[in-house]
Amino acid sequence: MTIPGNVLTDLPKNLPDELITTLLESANVRIERIVSHGHASAPDFWHDQEQHEWVIVLKGTARLRFEDGTVEINPGDFINIPAHKKHRVEWTTPDEPTIWLAVHYDTR
Amino acid sequence: MTIPGNVLTDLPKNLPDELITTLLESANVRIERIVSHGHASAPDFWHDQEQHEWVIVLKGTARLRFEDGTVEINPGDFINIPAHKKHRVEWTTPDEPTIWLAVHYDTR
Repeated sequence: MTIPGNVLTDLPKNLPDELITTLLESANVRIERIVSHGHASAPDFWHDQEQHEWVIVLKGTARLRFEDGTVEINPGDFINIPAHKKHRVEWTTPDEPTIWLAVHYDTR
Repeated sequence: MTIPGNVLTDLPKNLPDELITTLLESANVRIERIVSHGHASAPDFWHDQEQHEWVIVLKGTARLRFEDGTVEINPGDFINIPAHKKHRVEWTTPDEPTIWLAVHYDTR
């Protein structure tokens, strides 16, 4: 048996854009690795998603903005973002890659 | 806004048994943090689960046994275990806590 991949070590050297890799795709759930390196959402862009999203930061630091406030996320921190709760990535550290896991799921 | 928790830092000092904490429970998905410290499945016990399980190790090292072989899992390694694929935790390192994230999901 072999391990299909490693989210911490399989990193590209250059990262002109945020990198999103689907690790699992199923009927009700999609798990992604997201690698940001100083990236943020485009100015005035807000995510407004059909599915719920549970995210955790494994490495690096990020700031998420919601309509009611901002939260800083450090390694190990997790947060659940209900469907249609508007949010944007305000900032990720320029010092190192920020590695997120995102679990998109629905409740239908 | 506050972060609901941190999977890496909120660790108990003593760990007589494996510690399983549910981080998210929804209709189709349950996300757990599992902390092992030298723990393994009971002798001859095999997990045989109704749901699929996607697991990743965030810290520590573990060995998972399947009927067709054994795999060592290091930080960042992930693996998908389909429903009813028998498996057991053969070993986790005694040197430090092994922290897993497990995403249980079904496809109904």
